[in-house]
Amino acid sequence: MPAAGEGPVPALTPYQQLEQEFRRLHAFKGTLALLRWDAAVTMPRASADVRGEQLAALETECHALLSSPRVARLLERAEANRAGLRDWQQANLREMRRERDHAIGTPPSLVSRLARAVARAEAMWREAREKNDFAVLAPHLEEVVKLTQNRAATLGQHLGLDPYDALADEFTPGLQSREIGQTFATLSRRLPDLVGEALELQGGASAAPISGRVSVSKQRALAIDVIKALGFPFDRGRFDEAERAFTEGVPGDIRITTHFNPADPFSGLLGALHETGQALYDLGLPPEWRDQPVGQDRGLALEESQGLLLEMVIGRSRPFVTYLRPLLEKHWGASGPEWSEQNVYRRLNVVTRGPIRMDADELTYQAHIIVRYELEQRLLSGELPVRELPAAWNELMDRRLGVCPASDNDGCLQDVHWAQGSFGYFPSYGIGAVIAAQLWEALRESIEGADAAIERGEFAGILGWLRDKVHVLGAKLDVPGLVKHATGRPLSASAYLRYLERKYLSEW
Amino acid sequence: MPAAGEGPVPALTPYQQLEQEFRRLHAFKGTLALLRWDAAVTMPRASADVRGEQLAALETECHALLSSPRVARLLERAEANRAGLRDWQQANLREMRRERDHAIGTPPSLVSRLARAVARAEAMWREAREKNDFAVLAPHLEEVVKLTQNRAATLGQHLGLDPYDALADEFTPGLQSREIGQTFATLSRRLPDLVGEALELQGGASAAPISGRVSVSKQRALAIDVIKALGFPFDRGRFDEAERAFTEGVPGDIRITTHFNPADPFSGLLGALHETGQALYDLGLPPEWRDQPVGQDRGLALEESQGLLLEMVIGRSRPFVTYLRPLLEKHWGASGPEWSEQNVYRRLNVVTRGPIRMDADELTYQAHIIVRYELEQRLLSGELPVRELPAAWNELMDRRLGVCPASDNDGCLQDVHWAQGSFGYFPSYGIGAVIAAQLWEALRESIEGADAAIERGEFAGILGWLRDKVHVLGAKLDVPGLVKHATGRPLSASAYLRYLERKYLSEW
Repeated sequence: MPAAGEGPVPALTPYQQLEQEFRRLHAFKGTLALLRWDAAVTMPRASADVRGEQLAALETECHALLSSPRVARLLERAEANRAGLRDWQQANLREMRRERDHAIGTPPSLVSRLARAVARAEAMWREAREKNDFAVLAPHLEEVVKLTQNRAATLGQHLGLDPYDALADEFTPGLQSREIGQTFATLSRRLPDLVGEALELQGGASAAPISGRVSVSKQRALAIDVIKALGFPFDRGRFDEAERAFTEGVPGDIRITTHFNPADPFSGLLGALHETGQALYDLGLPPEWRDQPVGQDRGLALEESQGLLLEMVIGRSRPFVTYLRPLLEKHWGASGPEWSEQNVYRRLNVVTRGPIRMDADELTYQAHIIVRYELEQRLLSGELPVRELPAAWNELMDRRLGVCPASDNDGCLQDVHWAQGSFGYFPSYGIGAVIAAQLWEALRESIEGADAAIERGEFAGILGWLRDKVHVLGAKLDVPGLVKHATGRPLSASAYLRYLERKYLSEW
Repeated sequence: MPAAGEGPVPALTPYQQLEQEFRRLHAFKGTLALLRWDAAVTMPRASADVRGEQLAALETECHALLSSPRVARLLERAEANRAGLRDWQQANLREMRRERDHAIGTPPSLVSRLARAVARAEAMWREAREKNDFAVLAPHLEEVVKLTQNRAATLGQHLGLDPYDALADEFTPGLQSREIGQTFATLSRRLPDLVGEALELQGGASAAPISGRVSVSKQRALAIDVIKALGFPFDRGRFDEAERAFTEGVPGDIRITTHFNPADPFSGLLGALHETGQALYDLGLPPEWRDQPVGQDRGLALEESQGLLLEMVIGRSRPFVTYLRPLLEKHWGASGPEWSEQNVYRRLNVVTRGPIRMDADELTYQAHIIVRYELEQRLLSGELPVRELPAAWNELMDRRLGVCPASDNDGCLQDVHWAQGSFGYFPSYGIGAVIAAQLWEALRESIEGADAAIERGEFAGILGWLRDKVHVLGAKLDVPGLVKHATGRPLSASAYLRYLERKYLSEW
């Protein structure tokens, strides 16, 4: 007689066996997240070699799991019996297939050639930055572009997508370059004028500079107060300082960082707001699917929308400045006219035409993205030779934003993404901003008194709406489907343009 | 034509393939170490569920790797060609076999039954502690003992060892209960008298209590100064606070903790010294074997010896107190007669007969270990029924140390180890102390002026000797072989007794 609890185990269905495999994968991925977080926040500085070996071993394990014949067999058998699954299970099965397709869509030999080319190009990008000379990078970027063209074609064939879409699909699932291109085209028609009008309006009364430095400990105290009010779960997450702001971890153990600069006291807070938005997204994902593909976030564009909603839309709004004002006094001892609500609001929303994406304000940021989107498509299609990139960059920056970079460092050498082989990545920043505005419009239509709640530092209503409409869906729908579900309207640029016009053409 | 660097790869020998497999295993183990460290030091407090899943997935992976038919086949083939290997490779192969044998020596069904029984027993141990009543734990400990008897017999058969030795072999490789028993018997003949003589001597002049509290930040500053002087590698390691002192990580990324108690200012420092000893051991392991079994430490008894050498032998010596004295003044503002060298030395070396192992001084500590060693052997052999443990414990504590515990909490309920299924573990504490003293005697014979160097805070000579004689050997020799190699003499209790007599029967 078998002991209690040790009776014969009923055979698992193929779908159930897949859930087991992906549960294991999820544990490995969460472990990878901790390895990366630790490397950026707590690891001793000379231990990178050890960490590299650990990361490589775990990544190999994840790839082996996804590409195993066993998982292939189980997927086929589960898909043949798809009709017997509940809708969340069907979506989960679809996401399993998606993960496997992305994992095996690039042949291993190409993966390792790309890895070597990227390692060289990254190193040469640093050298090119030091010399402020794109020519140093060009031959190495050419190699990366050539291999990425190869990768995009192979992956596209595997996924049944155009080459560029195959790359972008990792970041904006279900959103293809046709829609991305339409959205960006709409924005490109209106934004240049809008920037001009905003600059004219702001030129009438400039924001007074904020003098003096704010110590890191004072900035930290304020940031902790604010992200607590927003609902950051300190019992399920950490908030640390690092060289840059980022979110790492898994639902159930989510860790954010920011970087405090004493000479630029709002940048650390705004970074923390951005990451808090992403952390709250992860926190709101469906708990019963936490360790399955369908229970994860819906890609970079959606993550970005949640970050930008807090950092840009809410965090730089008048009601938020009203909420912030007494906290600035309490934690930073802020007093005097430079710290008035009016002046702080202006400091946070100054529009400037500048060459650098990372320094761009909310209104001009999108032009930086659109330029990159257009150029990376032309690079990948072969229409634009790598050596002609600086000229094409400068010409397009002038056309889209009226800015002419003075050097390669202010131009096409400013970002490392392409040298790292990241193509199809930039659009998710721009689409994230568009989604944030569309969600915000729908949220304000259904929640009364959102502004007044923000002024009082009460964010539960806003968070509750986001959780119900966005977070709790996980990866059940694709990006267009999720936006339609949450806002009742298809994804489009119109809410975003209404938002920007209302904000930047109204009282300054 | 294959691209450069992509020519035909020469086939790897079975031994080389094993090195690859164990390199992967090492990366997984290092990752497990980080998961544990993080759980104790940095993890958000409610995230234990997520962490549990990650630990379980990685542990399963390690077990699957070690028990795979592929590794079994490779081991057989490599062992058949052992003669062609260099001596370090042969030792590595032996350690690979050893790891596999330990991993597969317990059938999986027994592993999971034990895991369940241990989980119950641990919980009941907590309840029994609250009620100060061993009867609450007894039936659950009985189950653990029964399953452990089973495990010891199976593992012993697999390893060709007596059941108890099979368990102890994990902690003191190559040292069997015959030698352990002889060593403990020698100690038991001399220690009771020695304790009596020391107490008589110390009774003549008691140590003045140290009044007041020392803040955690002051204690931390002192500890950092001291472990820096000892050679703790801050670029390859971390020093943090946690609920208890421990060492975690891998060579190349080693992390220690301690616990500072404002009311007991030396305990945190001594904990840090102990862990620094272990960290320096890990740091000195042969770097070219870092990711292979033979490049790891030689088990718990050796680790313990390195910890005790710093915490007890050096850290509580007169020369060390001389070195410490100005630092106490600098960091703690220590002045007045209670902080004199003489009084601090006495505070650190007071001998007391007490019932609690964790509170025991250096001289009486060994009796606590010997009592546990004798009792766990009798429990495992079935000679002592679990229900009779409290009486047997109290009787033996009286005989070995002249102490009669007033309650179960002061007696056999004080340690959680047995409820956790850890049998064969305690002796390594005692043997570690014996090894520390034998190493210390040999070290002083070969290094002139060791005391004077300690007084000056110069530890490089001592560390260099330990590195050459012990650390750099990794797991190449077994415990008896390593001790013989390092000291020129077989492992015995005599150096330890000489050390204790010199220290506790000389000037107080």
